[in-house]
Amino acid sequence: MKLKVIKIGGNIIDDEIALDAFLKSFADIEGPKVLVHGGGKLASRLAEQMKVPVQMIDGRRITDAETLDIITMVYAGKISKNIVAKLQGYGCNAIGFSGADGNTVIAEKRPVKTIDYGFVGDIVKVDTKVLKLLLSNDVTVCFCAISHDQNGQLFNTNADTIASELSIALSKDFNVELSYCFEKKGVLKSIENEDSVIEEINSESYQELKLDGIIADGMIPKLDNCFHALKYGVDSIQLGKPEMLFQENFKHTRIQK
Amino acid sequence: MKLKVIKIGGNIIDDEIALDAFLKSFADIEGPKVLVHGGGKLASRLAEQMKVPVQMIDGRRITDAETLDIITMVYAGKISKNIVAKLQGYGCNAIGFSGADGNTVIAEKRPVKTIDYGFVGDIVKVDTKVLKLLLSNDVTVCFCAISHDQNGQLFNTNADTIASELSIALSKDFNVELSYCFEKKGVLKSIENEDSVIEEINSESYQELKLDGIIADGMIPKLDNCFHALKYGVDSIQLGKPEMLFQENFKHTRIQK
Repeated sequence: MKLKVIKIGGNIIDDEIALDAFLKSFADIEGPKVLVHGGGKLASRLAEQMKVPVQMIDGRRITDAETLDIITMVYAGKISKNIVAKLQGYGCNAIGFSGADGNTVIAEKRPVKTIDYGFVGDIVKVDTKVLKLLLSNDVTVCFCAISHDQNGQLFNTNADTIASELSIALSKDFNVELSYCFEKKGVLKSIENEDSVIEEINSESYQELKLDGIIADGMIPKLDNCFHALKYGVDSIQLGKPEMLFQENFKHTRIQK
Repeated sequence: MKLKVIKIGGNIIDDEIALDAFLKSFADIEGPKVLVHGGGKLASRLAEQMKVPVQMIDGRRITDAETLDIITMVYAGKISKNIVAKLQGYGCNAIGFSGADGNTVIAEKRPVKTIDYGFVGDIVKVDTKVLKLLLSNDVTVCFCAISHDQNGQLFNTNADTIASELSIALSKDFNVELSYCFEKKGVLKSIENEDSVIEEINSESYQELKLDGIIADGMIPKLDNCFHALKYGVDSIQLGKPEMLFQENFKHTRIQK
């Protein structure tokens, strides 16, 4: 059976009208589906309002106890529950999950080498038992970027990774199509040219694109993540604007083995 | 089949050690169970930190859009997900629900007579379909005091009422025992005397206790709520400290028809 796992990023979360339009179309997708959402800028805005300083080391955010609280409130509270309420309004029966719910996404604290990231968790296991029960009963599950350690501790965990690890685990029972929606039409040959979408990337062309410096920076972990998911059982992966999900022939990038 | 619905109040939520001890014992309760939690003082503390003014009219809090956001973040985010993570740590597979999740608790905005309470919802329907699916698969569901209108809007809703309306709806399929845990040992004859617990109240003695002024103020809506639940199918109701759940012969109040 087919299953769609769709990850949406901050550009949709932060734009109320775009989010509403997305959820309306998402609700109409037939068959089992999972939504994974990032947090957007709301968490930073709340931290500012609460005067909790943002700690960055080497350009990476550190999650101390106060920051974890903020993330839990914003991701699993405000964003998750408003998404669920809107989906219900569009006739899609949904539940908002953190990785702790149903014991689904289990992580361990990222080991301290040179940097202590605080309450950041790396996924060690995904348990799909409760998730599959819900999906097979026409309930859509919406995940925020939070995991837990099965010992009472929540963790901040990258939403892209949650989407790919859920997809891998679910690929034992479903033919999983994983979609990453973001602000670009896909992987671009030239960042300045919105229409220079590379429509297909496979593991061979990926190496070349990296060597040529066409794929660099933040796109590398995103694509590594995709090839990892394909290797471990995910059927197909696509990257682009959310329109790729709802409009035929809307340009986007497909990742092949 | 028996089902326990347990509501815990702010005195447990606000005390980290008490909450942990409660969750540890709660995790060990056998058979299907539902937890309903209030929000305690955390929401007021966050509102203060965010400089969102608390609006009170005639001693009742008004839920404007900013306050609803705070409640959603604190109840459905921080409190709910930490409870779920702790329960997982104690071996109890749990999910944190708002009333929007699984389309479970449906409400409408409280009608404006003299006061506009803002985003406060009065329950009009409980749909137990998803809830029963989870309970019959050994998953414990933890509810926060939030409902929705099936049209995208979340509402602040009294946790005592959520507990009683869930209990009534579930009593079609289960023999429901509803427990209200709070800071007193039960309904007291004299507020000054912690041990003056009235161990049994029925609808007849309730009228007398009200006439005699022994039951007054905040205890009246609480007990009205209980008799309403008994009338509509709930098997038994008890009020008292959480110890009543875990220690035999711990003094508490039982409500009878």
